[in-house]
Amino acid sequence: MSGATTLLGAIADVGADRVRGGYSRHGFDHADAELREWFSSEAAARGLDVHTDRNGNLWAWWGTPGPGAVVTGSHLDSVPGGGAFDGPLGVVSALAAVDTLRATGFRPARPVAVVVFAEEEGGRFGVPCLGSRLLAGTFDVDRARRLRDPDGVTLAEAVRATGLDPAHLGPDPEALSRIGCFVELHVEQGRGLVNLDAPVGLADSILAHGRWRLTFHGEGNHAGATPLTDRRDPMLPAASLVLAARRVAGSVPGARATVGRLVPNPGGTNVIPSTVDVWLDARAPGDGDTRHAVDEIVATARETAEREGCTVTVHEESYTGTVTFDSRLRDELAGVLGGAPALPTGAGHDAGVLADRVPTAMLFVRNPTGVSHAPAEHADADDCEAGVAALARVLAHLAGTPC
Amino acid sequence: MSGATTLLGAIADVGADRVRGGYSRHGFDHADAELREWFSSEAAARGLDVHTDRNGNLWAWWGTPGPGAVVTGSHLDSVPGGGAFDGPLGVVSALAAVDTLRATGFRPARPVAVVVFAEEEGGRFGVPCLGSRLLAGTFDVDRARRLRDPDGVTLAEAVRATGLDPAHLGPDPEALSRIGCFVELHVEQGRGLVNLDAPVGLADSILAHGRWRLTFHGEGNHAGATPLTDRRDPMLPAASLVLAARRVAGSVPGARATVGRLVPNPGGTNVIPSTVDVWLDARAPGDGDTRHAVDEIVATARETAEREGCTVTVHEESYTGTVTFDSRLRDELAGVLGGAPALPTGAGHDAGVLADRVPTAMLFVRNPTGVSHAPAEHADADDCEAGVAALARVLAHLAGTPC
Repeated sequence: MSGATTLLGAIADVGADRVRGGYSRHGFDHADAELREWFSSEAAARGLDVHTDRNGNLWAWWGTPGPGAVVTGSHLDSVPGGGAFDGPLGVVSALAAVDTLRATGFRPARPVAVVVFAEEEGGRFGVPCLGSRLLAGTFDVDRARRLRDPDGVTLAEAVRATGLDPAHLGPDPEALSRIGCFVELHVEQGRGLVNLDAPVGLADSILAHGRWRLTFHGEGNHAGATPLTDRRDPMLPAASLVLAARRVAGSVPGARATVGRLVPNPGGTNVIPSTVDVWLDARAPGDGDTRHAVDEIVATARETAEREGCTVTVHEESYTGTVTFDSRLRDELAGVLGGAPALPTGAGHDAGVLADRVPTAMLFVRNPTGVSHAPAEHADADDCEAGVAALARVLAHLAGTPC
Repeated sequence: MSGATTLLGAIADVGADRVRGGYSRHGFDHADAELREWFSSEAAARGLDVHTDRNGNLWAWWGTPGPGAVVTGSHLDSVPGGGAFDGPLGVVSALAAVDTLRATGFRPARPVAVVVFAEEEGGRFGVPCLGSRLLAGTFDVDRARRLRDPDGVTLAEAVRATGLDPAHLGPDPEALSRIGCFVELHVEQGRGLVNLDAPVGLADSILAHGRWRLTFHGEGNHAGATPLTDRRDPMLPAASLVLAARRVAGSVPGARATVGRLVPNPGGTNVIPSTVDVWLDARAPGDGDTRHAVDEIVATARETAEREGCTVTVHEESYTGTVTFDSRLRDELAGVLGGAPALPTGAGHDAGVLADRVPTAMLFVRNPTGVSHAPAEHADADDCEAGVAALARVLAHLAGTPC
């Protein structure tokens, strides 16, 4: 068993979801607190200095925090009912890579930091990469403070409960200015490396992607006593939206559109809903294609809503344009790793947010089934070990020469 | 303000749902306990003897419990986010009618009972009219004990927590044998009385109706990283089912089919669900029509599931055939009420369950908008008072002569 899988084993019980299967670990919740404590303790045991930044991101420093730092890490939160690897693999591999470097007697010429970004999946407050977006200043901080979880708790309330001051949320130029480069290791969310027969690869690009919440408004009423002709049932256009999303995405090469979350209100079996909230996740290779696909899906939603006497409101929860990772850094690291292949991905990452600000790269570790965001998500122990070894070589290369 | 609306005012804060609006009061939950305590105290204040039967139904007796009793009442639980009248109006009108009769010096020649049936809406355990079905022996008691609420709590656990012994749940021939006749007053769930310009009417019949839970099984995966061609997304056939339900119901005269509850698992925005649970509520004038419509909807669901590489399992949660209320009793009461009109309804009631066992009638009170199962549900105070007066006359008539 590699150091990475041993470390993963230590958190195997934290945030296990008995209802959905897999893990439900969300930003600033109980499981998240336990994981932060565990990470802080592991970092301290390695003599790393740990601190939490103004946005709830955790930093563990090897050397004095300062400009030109080589930063690695990922996140510990999950989607609802998610797998064990998406996020945590990057964090434990960072710790294991530090161990590997230490064991070889390596002494970094630049500061090295392991970071754990907050609420990467947006599983609680709806906005993915919230910690890195706030740090980078790419998300409005007033809007962020007002974000609510499904129980109505605001982000401001949730961070206050962990001891952070919500007034301090927001752009963190000091933290950003320290990052010389950022390298995130992540389980692959697809079968690209399986097809290439390679345990480790590098990220090439990320599809443009975003989340839109559509609320269909109708009239709540009795499911048995209301004739069909008297209904304004928002579930009808909501269902049409699901089908339209697939149809439209199918007409745009490389595009994906998904409805994974749909909440009728009030949600009774014998009740025509008064409203239905539908979250649309849409992605495509280019900004224009993504926007165009979403516009077409929304137009269909408006038409079908109108036919049912309903209305629809549309709210963009987040949007990230196409990310192309720094090609110079990628080529350099491909050389360090003996020609590791580069792959595109449809999945968003904190690395995608930071790529706009600092030289950024990603390492992917092979996933035998390609399944992610589900309990079946997996990486073999040998591949995890190969990931740690690759990350250690990358860190040694990047931190081996002074700024 | 009539006695009925004063009594309704006393429980106006109990179980208010801040998220959905309206009320969420479900069988054996905290709000339900508070309502039971309130009812017991109101009944005791009137000198009525209160007891809870083996299935959690509450009985308040005027006179010695015994055969030939005239029973009235309804339920206090609601759908999620329901209105203030569906259920409680029948309970408070019963108490107010007792007051009215007492004020006139009426002394019943037969025992009179006010009953509060448990979990009428099935809002917590999925099966409507659970208390009356268990009492009447029309629902399998082993299956009932195993019913689970959305948090995984079984009915057996829930009733035990209230002090009832789940081993005693089930048919209650003693309670049933005491009921000489049952009269339930209820807010109308439609505009029949508005169209007839009448404050109070009698029920004629109830559509055959049932609930089916369809679970679509696919493959959970990442919403961004999974190409459309690799997906087995159960949300697609679930959406098709919603549209098929409307289409098929539209082809059967008088039929209704509704999807008011739909739960994707795990329910993350950036996650293709692994399963989707959909509850189908279907009703039609005849048993054959209802069964046929459901079969056709399910067949469509199977086809669309197969096209997406998904499967579907179907579970009948409850079914009640067409109810025609005792015509002799209805005609008799129409006479007592000076020719009150009789109306059919699509809504299920405890009275529909008991109609198969004892002479049963229903009184409807006018609902200005017809909306029900929603916060907008309403009855004007004058109409509520007319309902109490009508119920008092009915009780005086039925309980005025010995068995």
